[in-house]
Amino acid sequence: MLDNKQPHYFLGIDGGGSKCKAVVVSKDNTILGTGTSGPGNPLHGFEQATNSITASALFALEDAQLADIPLANIIAGVGLAGVNLPRLFDEISSWQHPFKQLFLATDLFIACLGAHRGGEGAVLITGTGSCGFSYVDGHAFIIGAHGFPHGDKGSGAWFGLQAAKQVLLSIDGVVAPTIMSPFLLKKLNCHNDIALVDVIAGKPASFFAQLAHVVFDAAEQGDIVAKSIIEQGAHYINHMTQTLSDKNPPRMSMIGGLAPRLKPWLSDKTRSLLSEPLNPPEMGAVLFAKRQLGLQ
Amino acid sequence: MLDNKQPHYFLGIDGGGSKCKAVVVSKDNTILGTGTSGPGNPLHGFEQATNSITASALFALEDAQLADIPLANIIAGVGLAGVNLPRLFDEISSWQHPFKQLFLATDLFIACLGAHRGGEGAVLITGTGSCGFSYVDGHAFIIGAHGFPHGDKGSGAWFGLQAAKQVLLSIDGVVAPTIMSPFLLKKLNCHNDIALVDVIAGKPASFFAQLAHVVFDAAEQGDIVAKSIIEQGAHYINHMTQTLSDKNPPRMSMIGGLAPRLKPWLSDKTRSLLSEPLNPPEMGAVLFAKRQLGLQ
Repeated sequence: MLDNKQPHYFLGIDGGGSKCKAVVVSKDNTILGTGTSGPGNPLHGFEQATNSITASALFALEDAQLADIPLANIIAGVGLAGVNLPRLFDEISSWQHPFKQLFLATDLFIACLGAHRGGEGAVLITGTGSCGFSYVDGHAFIIGAHGFPHGDKGSGAWFGLQAAKQVLLSIDGVVAPTIMSPFLLKKLNCHNDIALVDVIAGKPASFFAQLAHVVFDAAEQGDIVAKSIIEQGAHYINHMTQTLSDKNPPRMSMIGGLAPRLKPWLSDKTRSLLSEPLNPPEMGAVLFAKRQLGLQ
Repeated sequence: MLDNKQPHYFLGIDGGGSKCKAVVVSKDNTILGTGTSGPGNPLHGFEQATNSITASALFALEDAQLADIPLANIIAGVGLAGVNLPRLFDEISSWQHPFKQLFLATDLFIACLGAHRGGEGAVLITGTGSCGFSYVDGHAFIIGAHGFPHGDKGSGAWFGLQAAKQVLLSIDGVVAPTIMSPFLLKKLNCHNDIALVDVIAGKPASFFAQLAHVVFDAAEQGDIVAKSIIEQGAHYINHMTQTLSDKNPPRMSMIGGLAPRLKPWLSDKTRSLLSEPLNPPEMGAVLFAKRQLGLQ
């Protein structure tokens, strides 16, 4: 495709378990606007995920004062959690989407492309979920990404779940009292244990991810139970980092909403292997779309 | 109420997280028929729970060859999981039910009444969920019953979840391999890890409860990881037993689908405190209804 035929604008969208983030960029990758909407993981519902993708794109265009350009005129790169499962990749691929063209990748791949500005490397993701991904010599490798509540150790949802578990066990008198108990009751605006059990019942990963800070707040005040939870989570993230490092990625970054709080608890070895991400995942989605078009 | 005005038949219904069981009995408490239907915990949906209650009652009447008697002519005692939460108790209480009268209690209370044939005592329940309950000197006491995935340690769902977690961690190379891996893949008819992650995604407690046997099968073949899981679960159940024993119940029983497999792993002290349940929970529901009517 010749340069003078390049589209003027691109959309990049990153859909995760808690929210969907979009950027609209100019052809030189300058961010013109951003938008955020609801959960974008199709595992928790095709309709919710596709609605979130569209909504985040519209918000980004509005933010860029480009609301008069129809989605049907813009090419979108979209990275989604969940589409590492072939069934969900096929489901989203068959979506009658509103864009001019849609290029679909996993959230991991666009995060990696973003963190290393289109280059190869590895990323550790600790947001609502947790996982590791490397892309080296054209080969993709994934560790973790198993989901909630059985996997995703060291993630926001995992930390929140551990807090709830320990608080409930301390109510039973099975473990020592922890200052996470008053923190959690306050955070959830509960006046007693019965209310706590009711509020927690049947909640998804995104709910538990919001409770992760309770563990870090308590640990920073010296709570032994909270510290022990963080050590278990950090141990898993350290292990993932080592596994990714063994693939010899040129660069490695840690991203996701929990990364800033978790980083100080990781081993010196792990921290020495990490570099700052260069761009956010949604920009990685733009780079992915351009790569598929042969534009860069 | 005079004896000659006593109804001829009573229904007793026990609604749990995985299924709803009903008995129809004669006025001298002889079981004439039984019925089983789907999940009966209103936490997972009012409509499903109430449909299951009605269906189990109809199956029991059919089994007793009493299908010509309308539900509107029969008094039912109903014990349900979840209704220890006031919100759900009120929800079920306002149900336009099909019975002549419905007396509602928690699944714990009817299980206790059943196990001790209407007398006081305590029960440990290890089925899909886990909890302990005592009724001594007219006072009810509950331990556990916190729900999945954050509570219910030592329950079927908890054991199944631990199996899934350990198998996924062993895939990541974070823990030693376990023979639970091939057992779990076979049980779920999965050919590889990706298929396993897909099958497990978003599943409820009742799904994980079906995986509990994988842990016991593996432990019985000497698997160290599986044994360690059982020891953790057993530790919690031993603790619950001691807490209940401190209430001085005249009798204590262990019930629920997992009880036969878990019992051999409990401490000698715990086992010495347990007596066989005299009647199933659904008979306890009948005894509860009759007690409310002043019939016994």
